[in-house]
Amino acid sequence: MVNNLAAASLDATFGALADPTRRAILARLAEKSEISVTELAQPFDVTLPAISRHLRVLEEAGLLARRREGRVHHCRVVAAPMKPASEWIARYQRFW
Amino acid sequence: MVNNLAAASLDATFGALADPTRRAILARLAEKSEISVTELAQPFDVTLPAISRHLRVLEEAGLLARRREGRVHHCRVVAAPMKPASEWIARYQRFW
Repeated sequence: MVNNLAAASLDATFGALADPTRRAILARLAEKSEISVTELAQPFDVTLPAISRHLRVLEEAGLLARRREGRVHHCRVVAAPMKPASEWIARYQRFW
Repeated sequence: MVNNLAAASLDATFGALADPTRRAILARLAEKSEISVTELAQPFDVTLPAISRHLRVLEEAGLLARRREGRVHHCRVVAAPMKPASEWIARYQRFW
């Protein structure tokens, strides 16, 4: 059960990182402690609904947290799930 | 262009790692220098065509190499693409 949960979490983490827009969103989130969705979406050449879908994927993977302030959603990066992903990859270090 | 190639490679690497069967295949490949597809498929509770599809995803991500010997395909892990993936994640280490 623990292993299944851990596996599901790795699935979600690696799946979330498998998209260039989502990786760019995380890179932008890493620059500040918090950023609004509108500000976050600004440099991206995709629609706001598309950004929202990416944010939802990141949120479901536990890589993004939202705080609501009136109509404004503030986002911040949550890197904790990346730790087991990093550890999983590190096992193959001797092969590269 | 170089960045696009690097991004596409990260997409493929993270995408390939986002599946528990593919991660288990890589773990099995890491135990030996080479392993036949039949032997590789043995412990998995999925059909051989399903295993073949997983192997193709790993191969396309550059994480698996095949050598043909008559009708037998031998596989080995190629970990090189995991290095940039590991480096990408490492940037977030200060957040976890």
